[in-house]
Amino acid sequence: MAAWADLGVTADPGRVHTEGRMVRATLEDARDGVAALVGVRPRQVVLTSGGTEAVNSAVWGVLVGDPGAPVACAAVEHSSVRAASARHGTIVEVGVDGHGRITADAVGEALERCSAVHGRTPALVHCQAANHEVGTLQDVVDVVTCCRAAGVPVHVDAAAAAGHVPLDLESLGADLVSVSSHKLGGPAGVGALILRRGLRIEPLLVGGEQERGRRAGLEDVTGAVGFGAAAEALARTGRIGSESAAALAATGRLLEAALDVDGVVPYGDVASRVPHIVCLGVTGIEAEPVVLGLDQAGVAVHSGSSCSSESLEPSPVLQAMGVDGERSLRLSVGWSTTDADIDAFGGAFGGVVARLRSLRG
Amino acid sequence: MAAWADLGVTADPGRVHTEGRMVRATLEDARDGVAALVGVRPRQVVLTSGGTEAVNSAVWGVLVGDPGAPVACAAVEHSSVRAASARHGTIVEVGVDGHGRITADAVGEALERCSAVHGRTPALVHCQAANHEVGTLQDVVDVVTCCRAAGVPVHVDAAAAAGHVPLDLESLGADLVSVSSHKLGGPAGVGALILRRGLRIEPLLVGGEQERGRRAGLEDVTGAVGFGAAAEALARTGRIGSESAAALAATGRLLEAALDVDGVVPYGDVASRVPHIVCLGVTGIEAEPVVLGLDQAGVAVHSGSSCSSESLEPSPVLQAMGVDGERSLRLSVGWSTTDADIDAFGGAFGGVVARLRSLRG
Repeated sequence: MAAWADLGVTADPGRVHTEGRMVRATLEDARDGVAALVGVRPRQVVLTSGGTEAVNSAVWGVLVGDPGAPVACAAVEHSSVRAASARHGTIVEVGVDGHGRITADAVGEALERCSAVHGRTPALVHCQAANHEVGTLQDVVDVVTCCRAAGVPVHVDAAAAAGHVPLDLESLGADLVSVSSHKLGGPAGVGALILRRGLRIEPLLVGGEQERGRRAGLEDVTGAVGFGAAAEALARTGRIGSESAAALAATGRLLEAALDVDGVVPYGDVASRVPHIVCLGVTGIEAEPVVLGLDQAGVAVHSGSSCSSESLEPSPVLQAMGVDGERSLRLSVGWSTTDADIDAFGGAFGGVVARLRSLRG
Repeated sequence: MAAWADLGVTADPGRVHTEGRMVRATLEDARDGVAALVGVRPRQVVLTSGGTEAVNSAVWGVLVGDPGAPVACAAVEHSSVRAASARHGTIVEVGVDGHGRITADAVGEALERCSAVHGRTPALVHCQAANHEVGTLQDVVDVVTCCRAAGVPVHVDAAAAAGHVPLDLESLGADLVSVSSHKLGGPAGVGALILRRGLRIEPLLVGGEQERGRRAGLEDVTGAVGFGAAAEALARTGRIGSESAAALAATGRLLEAALDVDGVVPYGDVASRVPHIVCLGVTGIEAEPVVLGLDQAGVAVHSGSSCSSESLEPSPVLQAMGVDGERSLRLSVGWSTTDADIDAFGGAFGGVVARLRSLRG
């Protein structure tokens, strides 16, 4: 991205002049990287301004012709999935277990309930590939199979999973898949909506023929370059496997250090999760002072999902799992995380928690 | 942008840890630059993925509570303005003159026609600040005054004007204003929707509290950095004046060289236009071979508006002006345009046109 920005070629990739064709080639290289990562053809990839736009576009595209229609959606889905579905449709809840897992049985039950209540199948079923807060891997293959058998379109929010576990979207067969660049090592502000081959949907953003008429607006080429580079690196043979192994070891050590502290419990399915995320409940202390205490020790951790962080509501994901939504920490690692980073957490966490508990008296 | 990308700080600006606050400060600096350029408070600026998203958001925000309502919109508005208005509302045409100019009289006439046909005032009036294809400056102050007097909300697409002519949006008093980064020297893929103080609209993208709850999705910080830097540079005292004078001189020379060739006419109001754009009609030759011929001489010019360039339709802007929409060239200059670039056009244009005409004859 830095090299591309420095080059300063800013032509419109929709133009036929040399500068336009240079930008077009760069943009298509980026798209190829994204397509390779998730196992689809480049033309299935619609570049967007991020996962949130991809999700909003998916929901709009399905529901614009069927407004207010029932949409099956678990409470553990990302806030963008929930909010877009509630806006354009009527949510039919899909139950989850104590790890926040969506099963094909729960989706089947929701389909039956939808028929009973609404007299029809849902216009759309959502099934995230992995949970963004607790990391639990979803039974997405079974859910997609169940939906396809029922003839119901399915959207997979793969933002938390793409780049961290292998995804072969062509064989998965979902109708719509959302991915996000910054979740896999690329820049923020870019993502993609991936369409099943042959699927046409109405664009959310109109007024231009970009992205094969599926998303209007001059393309964010700099962002795409970063997204494509991250995706292309991850698409290389063995790369997800090696990064995943390193992330699993790192989060395993984080978990071990955290669970050494009294009153700390893991949330989500620690045995079947994306390798780079673990989530903790810390009895008796709200998340924010822990985040600030760890920050003083040079450790950046999260509470809640990023898209709800500016609101003060407890995490709906954790509420749906039946655990304390106000006292969670999300720890994540990335390709640049070092052993020293893990040690810094291990060295600081117990002291931060002890100090906060002593302040409470 | 290159420096920011190189720095590699990719935290979520909604987080309270040090990395998050660094990104937040950078994002807010960028917003300050945009706000300073157009004379509004930073909190009025909603950063978007570009002008097209800003326009779609403006139209959605006004019409979501009044679907299908009449929207007064001239045919010379950008395709995103036209398409979003047609999707969410019912277009009431505003007439334009042979230069593509929108006048307060024409808007007044459209308001009367709207009352007669629809029994109500429009939910929204569009008036671009300048035309994106021919450069004509619109009577935007008069139009906004007329709309405010009639109690009708007005959206100003300022994408072609911002950064090229002084804009004082606070005193203009429009309800919604769209701007685009790449039109003023910043990167593609970022823009802003500027809201009148106190105006709240429903966001187009939902599922996150970013941008004060007005636009969901993790922010494109790299893009914002570039947009902010370009805007901040242009906001410095005298900078628009000096760039504008240089652009006017450059486009004046382009026009002089072009009009030296037989059968070439200017489109739009060459006496009252944004300084960096001129548009030409070339009798008897379609635009594309001219674009390709000039490209061989190292000169990149446009035909049609960028957002319709992948379609083969003639320019609706030129059709509305009553001129030949299939035979236009748009020449534009920027801060990096040199005298040698202008000379290259002057040296090549006549020969390209003569060769193409001889092939036809």
